[in-house]
Parts: sequence; C-alpha cells; structure tokens
Amino acid sequence: MSPRSVFLLSTALAFAAPAAFAQEAADPTATPEAAVAEAPGSPDAELRAEAAEWFQPIPRAAELPSGRPMTQPRIELGKTLFFDPRMSLSGVFSCQSCHNVGLGGTDMLETSVGHGWQQGPRNSPTMLNAVFNAAQFWDGRAEDMAEQAKGPVQAGVEMNNTPDNLIETLQSMPGYVELFQAAFPGEEQPITFDNFALAIEAFEATLITPNSAFDQWLMGIDGAMNEQEKRGLRAYMDAGCQSCHAGVNFGGQEYYPFGLIEAPDASVRPEGDVGRYQVTQTEDDQYVFRAAPLRNVAMTPPYFHSGVIWELEDAVRIMSSAQLGTELTDEQATDITAFLGTLTGEQPQIVHPILPVRGETTPRPQPISLPANAPAE
Amino acid sequence: MSPRSVFLLSTALAFAAPAAFAQEAADPTATPEAAVAEAPGSPDAELRAEAAEWFQPIPRAAELPSGRPMTQPRIELGKTLFFDPRMSLSGVFSCQSCHNVGLGGTDMLETSVGHGWQQGPRNSPTMLNAVFNAAQFWDGRAEDMAEQAKGPVQAGVEMNNTPDNLIETLQSMPGYVELFQAAFPGEEQPITFDNFALAIEAFEATLITPNSAFDQWLMGIDGAMNEQEKRGLRAYMDAGCQSCHAGVNFGGQEYYPFGLIEAPDASVRPEGDVGRYQVTQTEDDQYVFRAAPLRNVAMTPPYFHSGVIWELEDAVRIMSSAQLGTELTDEQATDITAFLGTLTGEQPQIVHPILPVRGETTPRPQPISLPANAPAE
Repeated sequence: MSPRSVFLLSTALAFAAPAAFAQEAADPTATPEAAVAEAPGSPDAELRAEAAEWFQPIPRAAELPSGRPMTQPRIELGKTLFFDPRMSLSGVFSCQSCHNVGLGGTDMLETSVGHGWQQGPRNSPTMLNAVFNAAQFWDGRAEDMAEQAKGPVQAGVEMNNTPDNLIETLQSMPGYVELFQAAFPGEEQPITFDNFALAIEAFEATLITPNSAFDQWLMGIDGAMNEQEKRGLRAYMDAGCQSCHAGVNFGGQEYYPFGLIEAPDASVRPEGDVGRYQVTQTEDDQYVFRAAPLRNVAMTPPYFHSGVIWELEDAVRIMSSAQLGTELTDEQATDITAFLGTLTGEQPQIVHPILPVRGETTPRPQPISLPANAPAE
Repeated sequence: MSPRSVFLLSTALAFAAPAAFAQEAADPTATPEAAVAEAPGSPDAELRAEAAEWFQPIPRAAELPSGRPMTQPRIELGKTLFFDPRMSLSGVFSCQSCHNVGLGGTDMLETSVGHGWQQGPRNSPTMLNAVFNAAQFWDGRAEDMAEQAKGPVQAGVEMNNTPDNLIETLQSMPGYVELFQAAFPGEEQPITFDNFALAIEAFEATLITPNSAFDQWLMGIDGAMNEQEKRGLRAYMDAGCQSCHAGVNFGGQEYYPFGLIEAPDASVRPEGDVGRYQVTQTEDDQYVFRAAPLRNVAMTPPYFHSGVIWELEDAVRIMSSAQLGTELTDEQATDITAFLGTLTGEQPQIVHPILPVRGETTPRPQPISLPANAPAE
C-alpha cells in the first residue's frame, strides 16, 4: 500500500472512530476492552460489551509480531517481488496469481492452478490480515509470513522454482540490485533467499482491511450493522463459533480437528488430506487444521481447505454441525451469514509495480513447450 | 489510469516540455512540425528537424480514433474487466496475464501460456500505446482495440471462454451490473459482448507512455539524449529503419514482408506461420506482418512474432539485414540499440481494481482437474 493510501485509510478510520480508539488501535498490546468506546446508553451496549470480550477491530496499521522492520524500501521491494511472474520457473505465476489483491487475497478457485497446469491439493488462503495469524498455511507449518513466502516459490505444483535460480534471476537485474540495496542497507550481499522472504513479509503486513462494518459497530457506531446482522452476531456467539473464530482476525490462532463433533462428508474433508498430522506425525493431529480467519470471508468463496463449498451459508451450516454439533435454524444460518458479511473491510489500494527490466544474463523462463495449434495473437 | 495519475503525468509533461508544445500535444490533428519547439540556435536543430519529419511525441492523453467516448465509468469498468481472471473459462487468466502493466504490456515469454498450459504461436504484443496503431494483432486482423479484445477471451489456447459464458458470468455479479449501467447509461441491457470490448478498449486507450527521453529531446531539450543515443538516431534514419517504424508509435501502421530483402533464419521466422496471408489469402501477403511499434521496446524482450530473440541488439541486426539488406557496423548496431532505449516512456500507474464479488449463479471456474500430488498450501 502506498503511504498515501495508508494515510487515506487512517484518515477515514480516524473520522469514523471515536478519538479514544483512534489512538489505541495502533497499539497491539491494547486490551480489547480498552479498544472499544464506552457507550453505556446505547441499545447495543450489552451485545457490544460481550463482543468486545472476544473480538478486536483491525488496527489502522500493523507491525510484524517479530518486530522486524517495515521500512518503505522493504515494502516497495516486497510489492515488486509479489507481483513479478519471473519468480516462477515458467515466468507465468507470481504470488499475486493465487493471492489476488483484487479478489480478497485469494484466486476463487477450488484449489490453485500452478506449474504445468497442475492443481494444488488445498484452497489458496488469503494473505490479507495474515499478519494477525499465529502461523501460516492451513496446517500452520510456517511460523510466520517470511517462512511462508519461501514455500510456493519452490513447490513443484505452484511456482516450481529453486532458490538458486531465483537468486540468479534477481542478481541479473540492475533494478532488483538497487531495490535490495535500498531495502537491506549496509548488507554486503543483500540479495538472499531470506531477504526475498523478509521483503514479501513486510509488504504483506501492509495488506490489512480495517474499517469493516463490524469494526465500526464494535467501536461504537450502532448504525454500522443492521438488525439482521446484529441478530447474526448474537447467534454466532450463542452457537459458540467464537471459541475458535475470535480475536482480531476471527480465527488464525489455534488448531482444531475438522469434524470435532461429527466428521464432514468426504467430499468436504477428503480422506487423503490429514492436515496437521502431516506436520507433527501426532495421532491427535489427524484432520487438524488451523481455524480459518473469517475477515472478508464473504468475498472469498469457495470455502474450506478442500474449496468445494461455494456458498457461505452452506459453510456456516457445515461448521455448525461438524464442530459444534448444532443444527442451526434457517433464520440463524441466514443471520450468521449476514453477520459474516460485516467482516468485509476496506480492501488495499495497490498501485501495480513497474517491474525491473531483465538483464543479459537473466535466466529465461522455462514453461513446458507444447505444439502451437490454435489461433495466433 | 486514475484521473489523478493522468493529472500527474500531464503535469510532469507540461513541466518538462516547452509551453508551446504542452498546448499542441493534446491535439491529434497537429502536424509533427507544429508539435516540435523551434530552437534554431540548438546544435541539435538539424537532426531534430529531420526527426520531426518522421516522428511525433506521445501526447499527454489519447482519444480513440473512432471517436467513441472514453468516460471515466467506462474506463473503470474496462480496468476491472482487464484484471479479472474470471473472464477466462478456467478462472486463471486475465488480459493482464499476458499484457502485464508492470512488464511493458507483455508477458516476457517467447509465446504466451494459456488454457491447459498450451503455448500460443506468437509473442504477446503490448497494449501500451496500441491506441496509436492502425490495426491490432501481428497480422492486423482486428481493426481496433475493441475488436482485438474479443479475440483472446475466446481463443482455445488463451482464455478459452465463450461470449455466452462470459455474459452469464458478468450478469450474475451485482458489482458488474452496476459498473456496466454506469459505463453505458440508458441502455436497456448494457451487459453485452460488444460493450465488454468497448470498455476494455477505453481502458487500454489510457495506457500510453509519454515523456520518454526521445520525446523530451524531440520537444526541444537537447540534454534529454546523450551523444551515443543521438548517433543512434542518426544511424537509424541513415539505415532507413523509419520507412517502416515511424509516427507516434514508431511502427504499427503498415504491413511488410518479414524478409523483404533476405529471409531470416527459420528459427526466427518459422515456416508454418505465414502471417497476414492467413487473413487475406493473398499470395503477396506470405510472411507479411505489421511493422512492430517500437515504443518501450527495450523493456519488452523477447522480440519478433516468434519471440526467439532475447537481445535487442540482435533484433536490430536481424532487421537490418532482413529488411534493408544492410550489414550494420558494431558501433551502428550498439548506437541504434542505445537510441531505442530512449523510447521508454513513463509507465502507467494503475491502482489494481477490487473485483466484484461473485453471485450465487456465477458460473464456476472450469480448470482441468488433475490429481493432487504435491505439497499443500
């Protein structure tokens, strides 16, 4: 996000929010209670007080939990890398291909299409607000966004590149040499795989979506949610959804078996994907996944790690029976779905980067050659 | 491009250019002579006067030659469509995939990769400054950008969609219904394949790259090109390159046989692609192609319709022998290559659009399903 966009978002939020909150929001150590405006006379005061025990609004800007620096040159470099298809062996796919800033950070496919038109085994999770997650990937196998960024670029089914080829590519372009020098000043050899990941992490940490209707309501604006959405919030908390989907990001913090009470249909939870068990080899982790963060969830079908459920209300029903053993009434399911729609925040306004020009020694893209057999460009 | 970006570019150009030109530039009927500042005392006056007989600077803003309106809602809709991968059957490819605004409007592949990982037969041409071309595609088979926009979306090797599925997709999303209504006010059914193409055309006509070093020099700033680049311009005109590559876009106007004097190597001009002959079935059109526009050419390797030449200087040598029967000296080839680098203009600053949320009846993407056999996301 450009500094100007950040400024505009900040201004918009400061305008919408009570002044007390506007100062608290940037402080990640602030307690939820402190973040919510006191409005004891409001008809929503009771519901809001209960909600504030579970949820926090998205702040105007985020810091990396590691404390690693988010300098503007590092963010700019990260944005450039994120949008550059030459980070893949084929030259076809960039991070943006599967984590589209225009599609809520997803690709809206059941599972992503990668190198050689292979389809990956799991639905592409969003990087929007991922800075608020305790760990990354559906099974939490990457402890932060920097570690995550090293995955898809090497995965044979995704970008199919190697760190060596990636570094050679970056070093061959004077534009990238300058960007890395500016982002990692004083380092003798700034172009490294680690720094590649750190820059992407810094950029991704700017991709947050503040000022959703729910956040406005949580900060004291009664009219930011309508009656149905408030009923939905009530039903969400009565059913117990927030025991897994809470916090700033409505999830992304803990691991739970998918099918805690009742195993979902095998089409929704394919037998072959045992989730976190693949990471820990611990029997208790069979079919265990990270509770998906629900911010912007109405924008990002299809749902679940399998990506086979296209309607949010269907996903709500499945979660309710599989995780909570609850059969929701039609009204409850509809109301909760309406409530989840209030979690859609302001989407990042990203100016598409102009990518560095290739150099004479830049490795050429290596898509698979197939015979030309169709209309010409 | 946002109104603000247009404004900034205009401001930048007005600042760099003599005031007399700043007023002329927007007038497409202005003669080249009128567009160039008079500077009779300049050491470059003679070279500039000769260049002005052949070349015109890119104006600050372009109009469609057809006179069709370029309203802001139409441009916004066009931008949204341009970046939306759901315009392809698979949900994987958008216009932006092969005409990347960050890569000079190309994909930097020899030939593009499309649906099912097929490779197309020709190198992806840029849409930057395409509004200045007399016709579109390598063989000029589309008379304007609107007609062009209907091609890739239907090509089996590219986006592999059908107009019917496209229209159904657009009609199913309330966000698109609104965008089309705003872009085509008063039309009873604004979502049509024709209007889809007209909106993309309007957006693409904003994708121009003014204020290159050459344009600044042409407008009277001696120091905008260095001595080598000026020698390169001299050599370019002495060799006769401008007989095909002239005008605002340094090409894009006429058709010529590739191999006018001497047929290039079959690796550069594959036998199976007979160019414009496929369009006209006229013997004279064997291996005839549109003279490629050379604006931003240093940014957009690889070269030629076959995309097999990766170094600009190699392309210069091949063209010189194939089209002009001239063997350039090493210095001439290097100087001309340096001169071509001055044709790189200001690249469009595009805020990535936030794409409409799908509706309940939106057709689902249809990539080919392959077995999942790789690391999970």
